[in-house]
Formats: sequence, structure tokens, C-alpha cells
Amino acid sequence: MESLSFLSKPFSSSSAAPFPRPTPLLPRRALSSVSALHMSSSKEAKLWGGRFEDSVTDAVEKFTESISFDKALYSHDIIGSRAHASMLARQGLITDDDRDRILDGLDVIRGQIERGEFVWRTDREDVHMNIEAALTDLVGEPAKKLHTARSRNDQVCTDFRLWCRDAIDAIVSRIRKLQAALVKLAVKNENLIVPGYTHMQRAQPVLLPHLLLAYVEPLERDAQRLLDCRARLNFCPLGACALAGTGLPIDRFMTSEALGFTGPMRNSIDAVSDRDFVLEFLSANSITAVHLSRLGEEWVLWASEEFGFIIPSDSVSTGSSIMPQKKNPDPMELVRGKSARVIGDLVSLLVLCKGLPHAYNRDLQEDKEPVFDSVKTIMGMLEVSAEFAENITYNQERIKAALPAGHLDATTLADYLVKKGIPFRTSHDIVGRSVAFCVSRNCRLEDLSLDELRSISPTFDKDVYEYLGVEKAIKNFSSYGSTGSECVSGQLDYWIAKLELSR
Amino acid sequence: MESLSFLSKPFSSSSAAPFPRPTPLLPRRALSSVSALHMSSSKEAKLWGGRFEDSVTDAVEKFTESISFDKALYSHDIIGSRAHASMLARQGLITDDDRDRILDGLDVIRGQIERGEFVWRTDREDVHMNIEAALTDLVGEPAKKLHTARSRNDQVCTDFRLWCRDAIDAIVSRIRKLQAALVKLAVKNENLIVPGYTHMQRAQPVLLPHLLLAYVEPLERDAQRLLDCRARLNFCPLGACALAGTGLPIDRFMTSEALGFTGPMRNSIDAVSDRDFVLEFLSANSITAVHLSRLGEEWVLWASEEFGFIIPSDSVSTGSSIMPQKKNPDPMELVRGKSARVIGDLVSLLVLCKGLPHAYNRDLQEDKEPVFDSVKTIMGMLEVSAEFAENITYNQERIKAALPAGHLDATTLADYLVKKGIPFRTSHDIVGRSVAFCVSRNCRLEDLSLDELRSISPTFDKDVYEYLGVEKAIKNFSSYGSTGSECVSGQLDYWIAKLELSR
Amino acid sequence: MESLSFLSKPFSSSSAAPFPRPTPLLPRRALSSVSALHMSSSKEAKLWGGRFEDSVTDAVEKFTESISFDKALYSHDIIGSRAHASMLARQGLITDDDRDRILDGLDVIRGQIERGEFVWRTDREDVHMNIEAALTDLVGEPAKKLHTARSRNDQVCTDFRLWCRDAIDAIVSRIRKLQAALVKLAVKNENLIVPGYTHMQRAQPVLLPHLLLAYVEPLERDAQRLLDCRARLNFCPLGACALAGTGLPIDRFMTSEALGFTGPMRNSIDAVSDRDFVLEFLSANSITAVHLSRLGEEWVLWASEEFGFIIPSDSVSTGSSIMPQKKNPDPMELVRGKSARVIGDLVSLLVLCKGLPHAYNRDLQEDKEPVFDSVKTIMGMLEVSAEFAENITYNQERIKAALPAGHLDATTLADYLVKKGIPFRTSHDIVGRSVAFCVSRNCRLEDLSLDELRSISPTFDKDVYEYLGVEKAIKNFSSYGSTGSECVSGQLDYWIAKLELSR
Amino acid sequence: MESLSFLSKPFSSSSAAPFPRPTPLLPRRALSSVSALHMSSSKEAKLWGGRFEDSVTDAVEKFTESISFDKALYSHDIIGSRAHASMLARQGLITDDDRDRILDGLDVIRGQIERGEFVWRTDREDVHMNIEAALTDLVGEPAKKLHTARSRNDQVCTDFRLWCRDAIDAIVSRIRKLQAALVKLAVKNENLIVPGYTHMQRAQPVLLPHLLLAYVEPLERDAQRLLDCRARLNFCPLGACALAGTGLPIDRFMTSEALGFTGPMRNSIDAVSDRDFVLEFLSANSITAVHLSRLGEEWVLWASEEFGFIIPSDSVSTGSSIMPQKKNPDPMELVRGKSARVIGDLVSLLVLCKGLPHAYNRDLQEDKEPVFDSVKTIMGMLEVSAEFAENITYNQERIKAALPAGHLDATTLADYLVKKGIPFRTSHDIVGRSVAFCVSRNCRLEDLSLDELRSISPTFDKDVYEYLGVEKAIKNFSSYGSTGSECVSGQLDYWIAKLELSR
Repeated sequence: MESLSFLSKPFSSSSAAPFPRPTPLLPRRALSSVSALHMSSSKEAKLWGGRFEDSVTDAVEKFTESISFDKALYSHDIIGSRAHASMLARQGLITDDDRDRILDGLDVIRGQIERGEFVWRTDREDVHMNIEAALTDLVGEPAKKLHTARSRNDQVCTDFRLWCRDAIDAIVSRIRKLQAALVKLAVKNENLIVPGYTHMQRAQPVLLPHLLLAYVEPLERDAQRLLDCRARLNFCPLGACALAGTGLPIDRFMTSEALGFTGPMRNSIDAVSDRDFVLEFLSANSITAVHLSRLGEEWVLWASEEFGFIIPSDSVSTGSSIMPQKKNPDPMELVRGKSARVIGDLVSLLVLCKGLPHAYNRDLQEDKEPVFDSVKTIMGMLEVSAEFAENITYNQERIKAALPAGHLDATTLADYLVKKGIPFRTSHDIVGRSVAFCVSRNCRLEDLSLDELRSISPTFDKDVYEYLGVEKAIKNFSSYGSTGSECVSGQLDYWIAKLELSR
Repeated sequence: MESLSFLSKPFSSSSAAPFPRPTPLLPRRALSSVSALHMSSSKEAKLWGGRFEDSVTDAVEKFTESISFDKALYSHDIIGSRAHASMLARQGLITDDDRDRILDGLDVIRGQIERGEFVWRTDREDVHMNIEAALTDLVGEPAKKLHTARSRNDQVCTDFRLWCRDAIDAIVSRIRKLQAALVKLAVKNENLIVPGYTHMQRAQPVLLPHLLLAYVEPLERDAQRLLDCRARLNFCPLGACALAGTGLPIDRFMTSEALGFTGPMRNSIDAVSDRDFVLEFLSANSITAVHLSRLGEEWVLWASEEFGFIIPSDSVSTGSSIMPQKKNPDPMELVRGKSARVIGDLVSLLVLCKGLPHAYNRDLQEDKEPVFDSVKTIMGMLEVSAEFAENITYNQERIKAALPAGHLDATTLADYLVKKGIPFRTSHDIVGRSVAFCVSRNCRLEDLSLDELRSISPTFDKDVYEYLGVEKAIKNFSSYGSTGSECVSGQLDYWIAKLELSR
Repeated sequence: MESLSFLSKPFSSSSAAPFPRPTPLLPRRALSSVSALHMSSSKEAKLWGGRFEDSVTDAVEKFTESISFDKALYSHDIIGSRAHASMLARQGLITDDDRDRILDGLDVIRGQIERGEFVWRTDREDVHMNIEAALTDLVGEPAKKLHTARSRNDQVCTDFRLWCRDAIDAIVSRIRKLQAALVKLAVKNENLIVPGYTHMQRAQPVLLPHLLLAYVEPLERDAQRLLDCRARLNFCPLGACALAGTGLPIDRFMTSEALGFTGPMRNSIDAVSDRDFVLEFLSANSITAVHLSRLGEEWVLWASEEFGFIIPSDSVSTGSSIMPQKKNPDPMELVRGKSARVIGDLVSLLVLCKGLPHAYNRDLQEDKEPVFDSVKTIMGMLEVSAEFAENITYNQERIKAALPAGHLDATTLADYLVKKGIPFRTSHDIVGRSVAFCVSRNCRLEDLSLDELRSISPTFDKDVYEYLGVEKAIKNFSSYGSTGSECVSGQLDYWIAKLELSR
Repeated sequence: MESLSFLSKPFSSSSAAPFPRPTPLLPRRALSSVSALHMSSSKEAKLWGGRFEDSVTDAVEKFTESISFDKALYSHDIIGSRAHASMLARQGLITDDDRDRILDGLDVIRGQIERGEFVWRTDREDVHMNIEAALTDLVGEPAKKLHTARSRNDQVCTDFRLWCRDAIDAIVSRIRKLQAALVKLAVKNENLIVPGYTHMQRAQPVLLPHLLLAYVEPLERDAQRLLDCRARLNFCPLGACALAGTGLPIDRFMTSEALGFTGPMRNSIDAVSDRDFVLEFLSANSITAVHLSRLGEEWVLWASEEFGFIIPSDSVSTGSSIMPQKKNPDPMELVRGKSARVIGDLVSLLVLCKGLPHAYNRDLQEDKEPVFDSVKTIMGMLEVSAEFAENITYNQERIKAALPAGHLDATTLADYLVKKGIPFRTSHDIVGRSVAFCVSRNCRLEDLSLDELRSISPTFDKDVYEYLGVEKAIKNFSSYGSTGSECVSGQLDYWIAKLELSR
């Protein structure tokens, strides 16, 4: 049997390691004592190792490490340590010289990381320990004082909140870009009438800009929801230490302010226990993802042969390895599909937190990857949706040819009768019978003669033709928020101003 | 084989219908033509039936009906119709007399419903059609005008937003009650020291009020999150009609104001398409549910023989059908367990909305039951948690006896060394070795003699005993948000004032 | 403010109770002592009440009751008790007379339940206690012996496994009916060619029966998956008692056999702890639901004006309250939508079981409603899908007219070139350029002259026209499982025989 | 503001790229035309590029690429291509020489990959195109024939099914190892009595091996469930091509057999459309993950100070960065926590597939990462659980000291009374009162004198003391599957034999 590949890391198998062969069911102790020996000689002592005699096994070390993903927090970890060191110095807990050596050392480390020269070590477990240990290697004794009045429990929460704050800003700016792309597309097709659907059945004619703004509006709520989340998470856990605070004379208000937080968190146990800030964040992302999945579905359908309403440019389409004629709207299919992983990430986090007792449990280490994946995915979805919006052409000819089908003006006709004093239910029934008549004749409502209409209801008069046909139907819409030309034009103006675009 | 029961309705099989026997694989048409005949004679025509010749089959009618659950919206549906009728009259679309007859009729119907006299009919599909048809039966012609410039699409969204707004208020008030119960429990046990845990291992001593406030804080964010959601959903879809608005001269600002909304929604397609308001609502409930599951887990553990820290009263405990000695903290187990359905409800809604094209699709009928279930469940969880909080006694004796184990003062000792000028990493190591020494002696840190301590580190001095033992450890905490007595007392004052309680 | 309705029970608010008003934040104790007094006088003692002094509060009783939903298990509970009583008698643990009085009493109770005369009491908590207590009311002393060597922990698992076993059979029979409906639809349209899609773009022509069988196949795996689940769950937990078994001389093999189980479960703790049988069951339902959602999506699309490939009969369509011309394929929209709740139910159960310690925890009471809901929903989805299949007509004319678009024969043309000895990648490229040529000319591949074709590749010969056009393309397919007429005909025969249908 | 790090790849940010700065809202076209120019010159033409004029934008290429994760399929892709090439040659579709050059080329490529020398190119999109293009670079013309009668649609399904088949085998072997570790732990502690719990309250005494086997049993069902899934997925999609099969004379039975499949899939559309094989696989993993989360919860609790029943060795424990005394059971916390991502992965896949129309949609590209992550995670969870089992010691002294609390013998006492002829409900009540008496005296049941017992019920006789105390309680258990010593010993023998272990 040929050997089999397997991923060495979740979601990005950069190496080609074979499927790990399960070791046979032999007595393990004999082996492990040897390997333990080997390990303890080769491994650096853990920084928390005071009361420990053995190092952890390789399998445990590999299973429990987080450095492979939490190094993404490096910049925020360094920012947090800078603020912490400065505070410690001002409070007299370390000397100014200690502080300076720490700050200089952190700068060096940041440089190493950004130049790709920093060696991340799995035996140093996580980003915090990697940086602290490297700092110790670099500046010696002062580095050992950096963890004064700090635990990884409050440190990681601080880093993670800072990271999420930036991520929210990055997402919101991408939402704005997508809104702008949709508004521009609306401006470009300002007077285009398209069929509006309910139940995927033709319902009423709508102006394309009206439909596009129906995607801009939810995106606005998405942005506001993220900003509410941002405001709620922007409190500082630093100084909560392990869970109970400290007796050392720290100043939590100083670090909080230095890091741009609204203030320190009020309760130290809450500060290190709760992950509701990421639950809320991923909930917001999930809702945005659902919105984008709907846009994806619509554009995929509209790009089909059957609809034929949009033509994506080659630059956002892909072909088939076997069918030479294919041109597929892949990016929007993937936007639709990737909503699934954003939802899955949220579910992971909810399940993770369910039923955990108070304060830090190691389970919580699992909080980062779903957040990183959710953020990366939603950013990609937003970017590609904007790019797609910039690369589609509406097939005006095809759309125009398609409009007569589906009796899109039927409701306008019912409103006509209401204006003539017919109760709506009666007018609904009259128009229903008119449509049935058209179906039997295979014609449009506007094709019916006045006599034919009058044979259905004597209320019809010759002014009825001011209400028939999609253009006239559109003209008749007048209510606030409706698809009437003036309403839509006003809405477009609103968004152009809000998004600081120009016509 | 004996006959088998099955539920006639999801989640509350009130009848004892047998498992439906699948009909045999016979030609169906012959049968259905007969039954169709029977149906059409026995069934009222649908209000939308103008262009239809056949009625829907029984199976389809049963599968697609929503009256079994959406009747819960009756009150909000009537409120909405009242506002709509008043607006139609003011705009001259119906007469004042029509309006009065409609309003009177709606009052009668509300009375019938609330007295349990109203007959809900499945063949009338949903709450909207049931009420409108009953109104027609009652007041005749004017009722046929009520649906002027309105569709079920905007009507149901209006009802549902009103319902959610009330549900949020009801939940928030229950959050306040639970916060109050926790604060009162804290006041009752103001000076009780308990072990604080990380990784379910004893970490540091904390004041019980500090721990209880660590549940009050997240509940506060839960309430704020719901209120943000409330503000975002409080916009009025009424007048969006099917999806495109209307040409009739309605006043959407008037109905919006009458119903207490902030304003009408800006885009009619968005108004009837999107369900992000319930996605956000159920997300908020899910986060609250996760918080409560953690409280449940903690109290279930603390009520165990092994912890023995709390004693629930008989009034919140249940027994075993087989083991006579059992006294189980069932309510909090169920609080923990019911978090699962709140999360499941959210997932249902997210999956539901994923990938739907614009405007109303019948899928969206499925949006209500998850919301109803989530709201009912979270309200019960909050109520029972408050009730449990009011019915537990902390076993002070048992807790006190348990405190010496676990070296809860180790971190305080490390801080002592830091104050003496030892770098934290070194002090951590010294205390680690001190603990190892205690473990080998099976004693507490405070049991070590000064000589023994000095043999580990010469920095130890006799003032070290001011830092050992949980009471002294607690006294030493001083940072903002920490478990120090003064900090906690201040926090308690804050919450007592905020929740308008008294000590 | 007008009063507000709320659901008294999850998912089926039969009453119109107002939104419960939260009681004010007053001292509760004073009140509760009064109400407790009232309760204890009005309530029957719990069967497990030996060591208890107070009854549970109303809120707790309401929150912890399960009778509102677990009464659906009544029939299986009675079956289980019959088997248990018979075993107890044969083992000499009760007398034959006791047994007879128990069996007779259970018959009476079953009759009462099925005639709707049985009074389910919330204060008797669940279905087990309701029936046992009613039996005691009815036959006295012997009923008190029925719970010998039995706990509700093993009793409920037994009932639930029996219920699931029946539910699986009911679902599988509905899968068979849907398969049959699809096969009949295929037979009715045996030679109809339709476009096959990938990426919602036209790809290749396929025979409609081939496409319909592509839904029959997954349904077959769905059925097999359920039957695997059935085999795995068909082991008997009865006799595991609370968790440890018993010292009384019961015969678990006898009860297992009487109840149709494969055998008793091997480990008593496992028997009462695990709910993997419902996790597996709901997983299987979720997969089926996903399959049906895809069928729903396809039929909803195909019923649109733009596709226009199927015409659902009036009997499976519904209309609009506002748009008189609408005819909506609601049942299949709901099939698509209801997949969401089946998935949500699975998630609820997974979250529920996550992290529970061994043996019974009250959380597990929450295991039933998701299962009941999942089963009811999937059965409805299957039934309605079959009904829809029986009520659609393929619009052969429209389909035929649509076939020329999309170059469905391009891949066949590429295969032609391969047969002529051109490497596939080269032939793919040639055909790609041919298609581009057609696009520029707005014509079909078959419209190209041989000269035109030869200008692209000299390999084209006049036999190329045997491969162009969808009918010829279909004729050319020959591989096993392909859409070639003979292959499809053979597959149809296979399914007709397997499902015991006739052509 | 300092620059911010971000993950360049989901779930494993190996680089330290800054948070991508959103580009300003400028006209994009001007820029993109330049970059498009640049791209088209630098990019290789896509293999499907025949009818395309522009290359895709960088953003789209990055968003749609899959090579970063699907290269994990390389080995299975090569195996599949080998079988396909051999079949093509035997069927005369390519020459033997072509075949040999293809096979040799594939061997070279495999070697390059496994030595890390292969350059994966994003512009070549996926693993299939990377390998085919590299093969073309290597062997020229013959490589262009490899894709004859094959599409990426059937190719990826074939690769993925092969991969899953291997993954299932790898997981099952790890399940066996964990079962073995648990059985060995049981053997090592064969006579140890521990408290059994329900509701986290002490219920009855159980033998530790009985409890451990209660985890071995579900793992057995987990393995069987995976094997059922394996059997169901082991059918070959190769030859389904894009979706409709082919007209070329391929032999699908030959490739199916060469790849170890049971047979070719019957329907070509089904073959490329459905992903139920991974839905079922991830469902099975989720159930296993839930089982392991429960084991994790139990061991975390039992390692707490309060329980103190197990002592994990240093080699599977970690310490605290701040609290020197801590020793945390991290691996099992992570096992509990990682269950969340396995569930999240399943949800991602279910959401992904919901509502997709037939045949391949690009959404399905998202099917791989959740599967890879689920497999990697569950394998780690199983391995570490086994390692933990091998590294814990039961604290026999502590357990023994703890046993008297909780009246674990109460149910045995009730059974005693039943044996004396008392109806169970009455005996339950008598014992309940006996326990209440003990609680008031703060003593054990066995401490009550016969007179005291008789004052509660005259049925008690002096043989009652043969039933009191946990050792005697254990001895009294005798039912099949119970915790009686003989039963448990027999079960241990069963598992030792089944797992091919020795005592």
C-alpha cells in the first residue's frame, strides 16, 4: 500500500507528513521512560516549573501548545507588555532602567518577528512565554520582573481584546467598501427596472438601485452591531492577574488608558473567566455572513443562463477542467459557501464555553482559532463581494425582454381599483381573475381590452392603462421606502452622502 | 404488536394519536380526486384564491399552516391592525365609519381570544388571516378594506418586531431580578472566603461576594446587549407591503409612531426580507444561556458531597425514584442543559436564513418557533436561577474547614517576595519550591518555620506571616477589581445602588 | 399599554396567556412561605419524597416538569412496564396475581389515554410517575411493586429506545414512498432531456430520470444509515436500574427479548448515561434533511418564471394576500426551510451532552423534545416532498426550447476529438475556442460549418455532427452510471424492482 | 499606532503579516487595469482558459484557491491518477507508453512532494491542477491525456473518499488504543470501589473497572459507527466526470477495484453532487468527541482538590505562570474543549450543503477544511486521552476515606426490604426515612442499631447488616451488566480478549 499524506497542521498542511501510523498496542511505559529521559535533557525548564519533576510528554506538549496559532497576537502582546512595564515603573515596582531595557528588548523582538527571524518554540507553549523567554535571553534580569502582577490569564484576555478591536475596525472598513461598491453599481444602473421576487416567483417590478440598497441597509446594521460589540469589549482585564487581582500597588487605570480602553474591568474573576466578547463578535460576523450568503445566492442565480440578468467579467469567473464552455461565478458561490464556516466557528465557541465553571479553564485556549478563522473569512467574503460588484454588468436588453412575463403589474392594478373605491379584498379577487384570464390567453394585463377588463369588473375605466406595464407600475409607487423613482433617488442620495461618494 | 403513540404537535403532544401508518404505495390520484372533491366542498375559499382552481391537499395544508404557533402574535397583530386602520382613515383610504367598525370588531375578537372563545382555523392558515376573516364575519365589508396597502409580508414583520420588543423587556427584567438575587446572596455572605479555581484546581482565596459579582457583571452585559438589539430592531416595516411599497397615499410615519417605533424602515425590500433582528436577538439569548450554564455547572458542583459548599433547600431539590437518600439540584442541572436548546434555536435560524434569495420566501415562516422557544426557555432559566439563589445556604463550616488545602496563599507569598525586591520569575520559583516542600511534608505554607522558609530563600523574614493563610491573603489584595475586602465592599455598594436594593 | 400575548408552551401556544408580568423586586420569602403552605396542602407527596420536608416551588415544578412532552412515550412506557411486570412475576419477585392486576390496570390506563380521558398531572412530573401513580390509584398495592429493580433512569432509556426504533421505521417507510414517487415521475418522463448544471451554469444535457435518480440514491443511503442506527440502538437498558444494576434476581434477557431488543446492554452505567443513540439518529435525520433541502431548492428554482421547467398543480401551491397573480411553490420552500430545525435539533442534543459527567444528569431530560421535533419534521418533509413529486408536470415544450442555450454538447465534442486522437487538454482548448467563436456569432456549436470548425482545428471531420446537439450528445454517453439512455433505463429497472413498483 | 499582526492563513498564521490595510474608497478600475496587465503577463494560462480573455484578479485568486489545504490530498490524488491512467491504457484510450511515462512522472512528483521539493503554485488553484501541470512540465504530451474522461468533480470526490477511508482507519485504531488504555487501568484497579453519581450526587457504590468500562462501551459503538460510515462511503465516483458520465469507453469497475472500492457509484450526478459521506463521518466524530468530553469532565473533576480521586503524573500536567502551587490537568480540559470544534466542523458542513442545487457548486470546495480539522482534532483527543489514562494514579486511600459519605448503600437496603416482601415503593419510603434519620444524627446507615432500624420498620432483621456498607453493597449486586464483582470481572475478560490484551 502506498503511503498516505496527512495534514501536519489543521487547515494548512504545509508539509507532506504521512498519515501517522498508530503505534502498536504494546506496553508504553518502557518506551516512554526512555523518551522522557531524552526530552528532559533536551527541553528547557518551563517558567512555571518550580514544583514539577517531570516534563510533559511529547504528545501532551503537541496537543496543548498554542504557539502555532496564538503568535498572531504577538503585536498586541508586545503593546500590552509595553504598557504594563511602563506602569510597573511609574508605580515603583520596577526601576526606570528595568523598564527601558524591557521596552528596548521588546522593540528588538518585534523587529525580529516582523523580519521573520524570530524562532517560535513549541516548548515555550504560547506567544506570551515565547516573547517573555526571548526577552529574558535578550535583557536578562529585568525581563523576569515583567510578569509582576500579571498572569497569562489576564494577559491573553488583554491581547485578545486588543486584537478583536482592530479586527472589528478592519471588518467595518470592508463593510463600508462593499456598501460603496453596491451604491456605485446602483448609480450606474439608476433607472433599470428588474423583477422583484417573493417565493422565487415574480412579484412586482423594482428599480435595481432599490434592490441593491436592500443589501446596503443590512450591511449598515452589521456595521453598527460590530461597533456596539466593540464598545462593549473595550474594557481592560489587565491587572486581574490569575483571577483575584493582586496586593501589589498597580495602577489599572493607567494601563487601561495607555491601551485605549474605556476603563479597567470592574471584577477580576469576570475579567479572566468570560469570553462573551468573542461570542458576541462571532455572532455579529455570522449575521453578516448570512447577509452575504443571500447576496451570493442572488448573483449566482442571476448569472445563470435561465436568468441571464448579470454578466460577470472574466476577471471574477473561472472555467471548467472538462467542460470548455463553462464560465462560473465561483467567487459568489464561495461567498455563499463560506458563510457556513463563519457559523461553524460561532457554534464552536458557544459549545466551548457552555458549562465551564468559573475563571480560567484550559478549554478556553480553544477560543482563538475560531475567531481568527471567522475574521479572516468574513474579511475575504466582504472584499470579494465588493470586487464582484465592481465586475458585473447588468444585461439590460435581456432584463427588459424578460419583464413582461409574470404579471408584475398585478398589484398596481389592484391598487388602482382600491383608488376607485373597491375594497382591497374585492379588488384582489378581481385582479386575480384578470390574471387567470391572461394566463388562458397567454397575454399580459396591458394586452386586455377595456371591454375585456370590464367584463371582469365594470369599475375598470380607460385610465387603467396608466397603471399597466412595469414602467407605469414603477411610476405609481410613492410610499416612503418604496421602489418609486423619487423615493429611490432620495435613498441613493442619502447613501452617497453617508459613504462620502459622489455621483 | 401494540399500537404506538406519537406526538400530534411538536413539543407538546396533547393527544394520543397513534404513529401515523404510512399509506401503501398505491396509485394516489384515484383517491385524491375523491378527497379533493370532499375538501373543496368543506373548505372555505382562501382569501388569495382568485386565480386558483383546486384547494391544497390536506397534507400540504397541515405542513404549511402556521396558526398552531403564530397565534401567539395575536395581540401584536391586533395592535398593528388598529394602527393601520387609523392611518388608512386619516389618509382617506377608508372612511371613519369603516375604521370604527374595524376597531370595534378587533376589540371583540381580542376579547374572544382572551376568553378562549375564538376558534382558530387551520384552513385560514395563519394568525393574520384568521383575524381578518373573523373580522369579515363580524363586520363585513369594512374588514375587506383593512388589507389595503398591506401584505402579510410586512404585517408579520411588524407583529414579530413588536413581539420581540416586548420579549426583550421581559427578559431584561428577569436579568435584573437574577442580578438582585445574586447581590442579596452576596450581602448575606459578605465576609465568606471561598476557594477560587482555575482549571478546577484551587488557585487563590476569594470573597464569595466577589465570585457572585463575577456572575452579575456578565448579566449586565447581557442586558445591555439585548437593549442594543432592541434599539436596532425598533424600526417599522409596515407599509413595505409585499416588497415594493405602494402607490396608495399611506403615511408610514404615522403608523410607526403609533406603534412606538423609532421610525419606518428605509427600504421596503429590506423590510420584508431580513430577519437579522431575530438572529441578533437569539445570539444575545445564547450568550446569556452560556453564562447561566456556567452558573449552573458551578452550583451543581458546589452542591455535591465532594464540594459540599452549598445546601439547596428542599424546595428547589428533587429526589430519586429508586435511591431514597438522593437530593438533587435539578433546577440548575436543567439550567445548564437548557442552554443547549437556546443555542440550537439560534443555529436553526442561522441555517434557515443562509442562502435565501431576496424578499420573502416561505422558509421564513420557520422563523417564529425558534424565537418563541428561545424566549420561553431563557425566561425560565433566569427565573429558576433567581429562585435557586434565594434558596441556597452556604455551608460556612464546611467551607472554612476546606480552605487550608490547596495552598491558596501561594501567590500572595510570591507577591511578598516581589515587594522585597525579588524579580517575579525568581519569586515564583522560590514559592514553587516552598509548595513542593509543603506537599512532601503534607502541611500548609503557614506551617513552615521561618528557618525552613529561609532554607529555601534567605529573603523570607518574619513579616512573611502577615501574608500567609487565606484571611491574610484576602486582606493583602488591594488592586482595583480585586477580591480585597474594601474593593468588594465598594463593588457591592455599586450594585446595590444600581439595582435599587438596600443592604 | 395593551396586554400582550405569550406562548404558554413552547412551539404550540394553545392558550392566550398574557406576557407574564415580572414580579417586583420585593422580599420574596414572606410571600413564598404563604404559597408554600398552600402548595403543600394541595399537592400530593412525590413518590420519592421520603426524606423531603418541603415541596418544590411552583416555578421549579413548572421548570422541571416533563409531562407536557414525555407523555408521547406513554405507549412505550406501558409496553415496557408489561414486560417488566411479567419478568418480575416469573422471577418470583411479585406474584402472578400482582402481575395480572398490573397488566389489567395498564390496559385500563392505555384505554383512558387513547380515549383522551386520562388526566396528566404536572405534580406527578413525568410519564412514568403519572402512569405508576394512576396504576396505584387503580389497583393499589401491586402497583407499588412495579418499580422493583427499576429506576426511572433505565425506564426512560428503554421507552425512548423503543420509541426511536418505531420512529426510524416510520421514517424509512416515508423515504421509500418518496423514492417511489421520484421513480414514477422518472418513468412518466422517461425520455425528457433537461440541462444539467454545475455552478448553476449549464453543463451537459442529462435525461430527467437520471437527475431524479440522483435524488433516489442519497435517499437510499439515508435509509441504510437509519437502519444502521436502528441496529445499534436496539439493545435493552432495562435492569440497569439507577446506574449500578441490582441485587434482586431479575432476568434482563427475558425483558430484552419480550421487547424485541437484540439483547440487554452490557454495562449498566453506560446504559443510563449515554445518549449516543439519539445523537446518531438526529445526525441521520440531519443528513436526510440536507438532501431534501437540495431537492427543495431545485424545484423552487425550476418552478420560477425564469426556469419554467416544472408546473406544480394548484393543490400544492399557494397564493399571495396582496399580489393576485402569484402561485408559489410553498411546500418545497418549507421543505428547504425546515431542514434548519432538524439541524438545530441535532446541535441542541450535541451541546446538551457535551461535558456531562457520568450517569444520569437532569440535563438529559432535555433529550426528548429535539428528537420529537426532528422526527415530526423529517416525516412531514418526506411526505410533502412525495406529494409534490406527484403533483408536478414538467413543461416539456419550455424545456425543449431552452436546451439549445449553454452549449451543453461542448464536452461531447471534446470527447469526439479525444476519440480522434487529440490529447484531452488540447481538445478542451479547441472546443473552448469553438465555444468562444459561437458566443461571438451568437450561435450553437451545431450551427458551425465544417469549414469554420476546421479553421479552429483540422481534426474536425463531417462525422462531428453525430456528436452535436443535445439529443446526439445524450446518445453518445455510454459509461456505467452515465446519462446515456440505456444506462438510465437499466437504472430505472433496478429501482422499479427494488421498490416493488411496476412500469 | 503600532502595526498589527494578523494571520496569513486560517488557523496557523506562520507569517507575521500586518493587518491588511483596507485600500481607500478610490476608483478601482484605473488601478486594476494596470495590475491586470501585470498579472496576465506574469501568470500562466489556466488549463480551463480556452474561452477566457482576462485572468482573474488577485483577490479572487486568493479567495478561491484551495491548494493551501487540498494539497493534503496529494497522495490520494496520485493513487487515483495511477489507477485512471492504467485503465485508460487498457481501454486503448492512451498508449502503454503514455501510461508508463505518466506513472513514472507521478512517482517523481510524489518523491518531490515527500522530500519537500515540490513547489505548490496558487495560480494552479488546487492539488489536481498542480500535479497535472507539473506532470506536463515533466513528461509533456502524455500528461495532457491524463484528464481524458475525468473531471475535477469526480477526481476530488475520489481523492476525498480515499482520504476519509484512511482517516477512519486511523481513528478507529486510536479508539482501540484508548479502549486498551482504559481496560488496563481497570485491571490495575480491579477491586477499587468508587462512588457512582447521578446528578453529581452520590448514588451507589461501583467498582472502578465497571465505571471505566462504561467509557469503553460507547467507544466501541463509536468505532462501529465509523466502520458503517466507511462501508457506505467506499464506492467509487471516478468516471462520473463532470456530472453526466462520458461517451469514451472507460471501465469504471477496473478503477474502482484498483482503488479498493466496493464498486463504482451507480449514478454519475449523485457521485459528484453529494457530500453525505463527510456529513456522516463528521457526525460520527462529533459523537465520539462528546463521549471524550464527558471523560474529560470526569477526570478534571476527579483531579480537583475536592474530589482528589486521581493524581495525574507531572508528565500530563502543567503549571501556572503566576500561581506556583498549581498543577493542572490541562490535557483533559483541552479534550473537553476541543469537542467544541469537532461539533463546529460538523455544523459548518451541514450549513454548507443546505439548499445547494444539484451537481457540483463551488461552495463544495469548503468541504475539506472542516474534515481535516475534525480528523486531526479527534485523533489528538483520542491519543491524549489514552496517554492520560496511562499516567493517572487512583488515590485509593482518599477514595476509601470518602466512601462512607452519601449513603451509597441506601438502594441496596431498599432491595433488602423488597426481598423481605415489602413493595418497592414502601421500602423506598422506609429507607428514605432511615436516611433522614442518619442525616439528623450525622451517621451512616450501618451505624444505626437494629432497634433504631426497627423503630422505622419492623421488617428489618439482623441480616440487614449483610447489606450495609459499600463493600457489602457491591457484593450484593448480581444482575447482568451490574457492578457486582463477578459481572465486572466477566466484562473485563470480554474486553481483554476482544482487544487482544493480557491481564
